[in-house]
Amino acid sequence: MKLEGRLSKDNINPHLLDIEYAVRGPLLQRAEQIQRELDKGVKKPFTKVIYANVGDCHALGQKPITFIRQVLSLVSDPECIASSAAPEDVKQRARELLADCTSGSVGSYSPPAGLRIVRRRGAEYLRKRDGGVPADVDDILLGAGATDLIRAVFQLINCPVDGKPPAVMVPVPQYPVFSGLLAELGVRRVDYQLSEDAGWALDPRELRRSWLAHAGDHALRAIVIINPGNPTGQVLSRENIEEVVRFAYEHGLLILADEVYQENIVCKPFHSFKKVMHEMGEPYASMDLCSLLTLSKGWSAECGLRAALAELRVCRDVSAVLGRARAVAQCPPVLGQCALDCVLRPPAPSEPSYAQFSQERSQIHRTLCARAAAAHAAFNDIPGYSCNTIDGAMFAFPRVEIPARAQAAAASLGHTPDEFYCLRLLEATGICVVPGSGFGQAAGSFHFRTTILHERDTFHHMLREFRRFHLMFREEFADEE
Amino acid sequence: MKLEGRLSKDNINPHLLDIEYAVRGPLLQRAEQIQRELDKGVKKPFTKVIYANVGDCHALGQKPITFIRQVLSLVSDPECIASSAAPEDVKQRARELLADCTSGSVGSYSPPAGLRIVRRRGAEYLRKRDGGVPADVDDILLGAGATDLIRAVFQLINCPVDGKPPAVMVPVPQYPVFSGLLAELGVRRVDYQLSEDAGWALDPRELRRSWLAHAGDHALRAIVIINPGNPTGQVLSRENIEEVVRFAYEHGLLILADEVYQENIVCKPFHSFKKVMHEMGEPYASMDLCSLLTLSKGWSAECGLRAALAELRVCRDVSAVLGRARAVAQCPPVLGQCALDCVLRPPAPSEPSYAQFSQERSQIHRTLCARAAAAHAAFNDIPGYSCNTIDGAMFAFPRVEIPARAQAAAASLGHTPDEFYCLRLLEATGICVVPGSGFGQAAGSFHFRTTILHERDTFHHMLREFRRFHLMFREEFADEE
Repeated sequence: MKLEGRLSKDNINPHLLDIEYAVRGPLLQRAEQIQRELDKGVKKPFTKVIYANVGDCHALGQKPITFIRQVLSLVSDPECIASSAAPEDVKQRARELLADCTSGSVGSYSPPAGLRIVRRRGAEYLRKRDGGVPADVDDILLGAGATDLIRAVFQLINCPVDGKPPAVMVPVPQYPVFSGLLAELGVRRVDYQLSEDAGWALDPRELRRSWLAHAGDHALRAIVIINPGNPTGQVLSRENIEEVVRFAYEHGLLILADEVYQENIVCKPFHSFKKVMHEMGEPYASMDLCSLLTLSKGWSAECGLRAALAELRVCRDVSAVLGRARAVAQCPPVLGQCALDCVLRPPAPSEPSYAQFSQERSQIHRTLCARAAAAHAAFNDIPGYSCNTIDGAMFAFPRVEIPARAQAAAASLGHTPDEFYCLRLLEATGICVVPGSGFGQAAGSFHFRTTILHERDTFHHMLREFRRFHLMFREEFADEE
Repeated sequence: MKLEGRLSKDNINPHLLDIEYAVRGPLLQRAEQIQRELDKGVKKPFTKVIYANVGDCHALGQKPITFIRQVLSLVSDPECIASSAAPEDVKQRARELLADCTSGSVGSYSPPAGLRIVRRRGAEYLRKRDGGVPADVDDILLGAGATDLIRAVFQLINCPVDGKPPAVMVPVPQYPVFSGLLAELGVRRVDYQLSEDAGWALDPRELRRSWLAHAGDHALRAIVIINPGNPTGQVLSRENIEEVVRFAYEHGLLILADEVYQENIVCKPFHSFKKVMHEMGEPYASMDLCSLLTLSKGWSAECGLRAALAELRVCRDVSAVLGRARAVAQCPPVLGQCALDCVLRPPAPSEPSYAQFSQERSQIHRTLCARAAAAHAAFNDIPGYSCNTIDGAMFAFPRVEIPARAQAAAASLGHTPDEFYCLRLLEATGICVVPGSGFGQAAGSFHFRTTILHERDTFHHMLREFRRFHLMFREEFADEE
């Protein structure tokens, strides 16, 4: 083939070159390499790599919810329903879901927006969550994971307005799916800094500063809020949400509320943007809003099944356009939709699966609360570490003091100080975390994100190792007297 | 919210307004409305709508392959493996797949490119398919359906080259996923016409004509070939493939070979682009190529599970960039990947599931062949209809003469003649097909696409109804003497 014809880094879409996704970045590659070395018998100060980079509960040993898996098993193989030993509510759920699949097969396409039964239950779930605030089934859109839905929303606003290129406001720190998708689509990311000193709250002055700094050159179309925070773990107060809503109203921004951790709550009450906006009344109640919920998080944590839900409150014309665009890809995975149905309408107390379901769900919640408290205490007990309260989600994002000599050593290797720190941590302890720079952090501050999902013994081993490593690291790079 | 802030048709991405997907277009909406009327007891000349718009075998009554569903059932609920009455090879397959899932759960994320075991089996499948031509597991990329993978490839070439906007050559008629995705991404579609008179072959003169007409203003980056054809049903000859390969080489085009119907072959032998390019030797053997295979088609026809495979032969730098970009969306649905594994490595003759599997697969193939022959014969027997041989895929795309008076009536209603014809067909018979204009067709010619997947009685009823309707229609719109 003529050389100039073949695809090369010089002639492909440069937006793709800009995508960075630190959660699966160079640290993970090195971790996987180390594990292969260990497998070959190479001696290291540890016997296996501990992956703490991805919020993937099942990968870290959390058992699936029995009810969900029993339902999946029966909808996959309906001939077994009659003879199955599964509880009657499992069989009933399988029959209901199959009745909504064309010709009773999960192998048929669902409608592009998702199975009607699952969308109905989504609306009902939101109504109950928000104490009766109405939710319209026509606003419910299912997707193959939250990324699929976020991309759809970003694509919707991906056009210049009055000659200005589009932009989206994104928190710092953020979950890099936002920066990654915006980079792919060539939409400008406009950062606003969360207030670490105020428990990672959103400061309206900072929102205004950021808006003013960019609105001259860009059409700011949307603001992303991650609540509960990822990687930061805060749950926003009602007052803070109201401030954000007023800001978004004032500047005509669609609110993209990433609320995927809404079922992973440790201590503070979760307020949905939808509910707060409804209670603020008009004009806020009718603003554009996209709120996300996913099967991959919460107590189900079924990452591999790829299902998520958006409540997309925009005018009907716009949702119709999006619906037609999404029909090209046919539909989200039907088995994922079936599992999502189990989350949206879990077993009720009167049903035979309830006892086991309730026990499993409580256990997952208890574990999260215990891990969050232990991580918070342990990190604040390490000299040079500080860590805000972990209100929700499934991560800790401690701040770490990195000595000037270590920063210089990092620079000499072409690493950021936090990358250097995390690499050294990996080499010394086998623990693979994600450097704060992968999420963004205030200049001069350094962090890392670790999941807090490991089983008890591994988790406490990790906490001890963080401490042991940090003391070693401090000593190695202590300022010369 | 300030009015200018809310999303409206006037301020969203205009590319999305350009997307048309006739397979789920206005005809389907009317069909669904008619079905609702029937459900309410409204009298019509028929008792139910017959959906022939989507190639969705399960929706039309095809039974799932037992082996696939048994495996899905066990990987979903691994606690049942020991006690299950399923054959030993089903259990073995479930254990193998779970061994490749992190911590043995299909609820864990897989690597972004897919489970290693499935990709390995993909490479092995391709090697066997092509009589030993090597296939590299690193070239195998799994996706959430073929659309996901096609979008990824289009996004890769979505950038100007030497100041010229990117473009992709697409056949006419085409499957509208191509036009839809190109419209979404704002990449120019450059049409080339298939030769209906030559059994829907690709005419190299037409390829050159199309290239010459557009290469001045556009950077032509890729050529889409659909083989077996959709909606057209042809299987390309080896010679024709060689001609296309030489053309693509000469103009430095990536070949995007949509070969998703490669297991739906009626009569002519299927030649993969990969094999032909390999056998042509250098420089053709090393050209850029993306070839597609999907779980949604073939004998599995598991549309709802959303899994597909691309063999993407581009330089490693480029596939690495794509890999990083795709990691943002984490991974394709793991249960879909498990089902795809069963297609890539079906039960072997020595295994206990083979007899039933083989019987089920043969039955599906026999049905396809019988339907293709019956449709071809019936359509060519209707005065004013003509239909090429259906070599593969799962559609008929007959050409229909539409009287001048009917064309005028269509124009007066703002419809194309074929839309008008299909709407009248729907109202008269309840059969929902897709007008040829949804795929593209030579000026002055009119077609529609119907699936040929219905069970025997419905199918023969459809064929009789097409005839009855057309004679009626001809009479209604006959030229006045």
